[in-house]
Amino acid sequence: MAADKIEIIPLPGIPIVEEGNNIAGLILQSLEKIPMKLVTGDILVIAHTLISKAEGRVITGSEVEVSQKATEIAEANDFDAIQVEIALQESKNVIRSSRALITELENGHICNFSGVDRSNAPEGKFVLLPKDADKSAYRIMEELGEETNQEIAVIISDTEGRPWRKGAINIAVGCAGINAFKYNKGRKDLYDRILQHSLVCQIDQVASAAEMIMGQANEGLPVVIVRGYEYESGEENAKSVYRSTEENLFK
Amino acid sequence: MAADKIEIIPLPGIPIVEEGNNIAGLILQSLEKIPMKLVTGDILVIAHTLISKAEGRVITGSEVEVSQKATEIAEANDFDAIQVEIALQESKNVIRSSRALITELENGHICNFSGVDRSNAPEGKFVLLPKDADKSAYRIMEELGEETNQEIAVIISDTEGRPWRKGAINIAVGCAGINAFKYNKGRKDLYDRILQHSLVCQIDQVASAAEMIMGQANEGLPVVIVRGYEYESGEENAKSVYRSTEENLFK
Repeated sequence: MAADKIEIIPLPGIPIVEEGNNIAGLILQSLEKIPMKLVTGDILVIAHTLISKAEGRVITGSEVEVSQKATEIAEANDFDAIQVEIALQESKNVIRSSRALITELENGHICNFSGVDRSNAPEGKFVLLPKDADKSAYRIMEELGEETNQEIAVIISDTEGRPWRKGAINIAVGCAGINAFKYNKGRKDLYDRILQHSLVCQIDQVASAAEMIMGQANEGLPVVIVRGYEYESGEENAKSVYRSTEENLFK
Repeated sequence: MAADKIEIIPLPGIPIVEEGNNIAGLILQSLEKIPMKLVTGDILVIAHTLISKAEGRVITGSEVEVSQKATEIAEANDFDAIQVEIALQESKNVIRSSRALITELENGHICNFSGVDRSNAPEGKFVLLPKDADKSAYRIMEELGEETNQEIAVIISDTEGRPWRKGAINIAVGCAGINAFKYNKGRKDLYDRILQHSLVCQIDQVASAAEMIMGQANEGLPVVIVRGYEYESGEENAKSVYRSTEENLFK
């Protein structure tokens, strides 16, 4: 049986967000203007900067006191010392500080500069990752579900570099209503054998698909709808994707 | 200005491929049966196993002589010794051989088990990566272009694990007609500042988007069409994505 096609749909009209804004409310307003209705099975992919700004996860650079360690890392790599300092404050571990600043956050997420971002941040400000993006995704899912009476999934995304491959791709830092993984275990391959090891991170793939429209610059399309994907539901959230120290292939 | 939506469209009807089969021909036959026409801007994402089988990149396990080194790695990790041996033969360097077998191929591609695959391979056989997937993609692009008079892009994909994140995602191992990267450099962000560092690996994102339909098991949908994505064209192919030894963040 052939699968149906999947659509990746832009949601124009989302304004620049400020602290305290209700993201679900802004999404519903934008949908009404088009007009378009959400339907059960839709996945909303939301750029994390939108969530972070609404949650006040923004730091003013001039208020940051730069430590000796941050100064050293910044000078050795020609990085911005303030951005390094904020990245260090946000991190639990520094994985690498030469040629790149790769850190591990309190929740286990390993990323570049602790996800501290100057792009799409107001002048002189730095946008952090949401404190708990899975929780943020859950809240938005609940609010959208109540207002629309449809079962909507939510993914919060960020762009990340990769150790072995050049160029960033979009990944999921939070999710709700969609399971982090799909399991092909127990399914059969082309030759009718049971697949043994097949764990696919479907939320990262959906985030990457959405970035094709979302872009990273001034398109002003921080919310994208993925429609028609037959994803697996479940309780595994974006935190389930982080490898533990024992599973990390670089410890 | 709002972007238009992107469609990810399954191409049913591709048969099990054997050595010598013409992939472009099989794709055109499947399109005719639906019927559907390719249009300029379409990206065909093709699972690498299809290409490898057509190119005879399949090894019979019983014909492989297992070395001492392969036996040791296999025993220490509970891996299949034959699969380890083939992976070693395909590789230029072993990056890691404990808990995972991560290797670097002659062309610089770093991956799990040198990309040697038993899923979707005939019984007792192992499917290798195409010898030069960029070249394979180029040939298919040329043949489709000639037959359809449209400008079609081609991506050859494989699923790969990640060092810091659980679950595999689809990536590009070859491409033609679409540039590996898109550059947001010189574009402005929401606050009208020029973005400094923004290099996105668009071919990996397109491959991930296609996997939502392609699946990894017995769906029999190894070819997916991505339509409506305003990608950047250029000459950078999948090999441009591999970090050199100097740029590798784990050397």
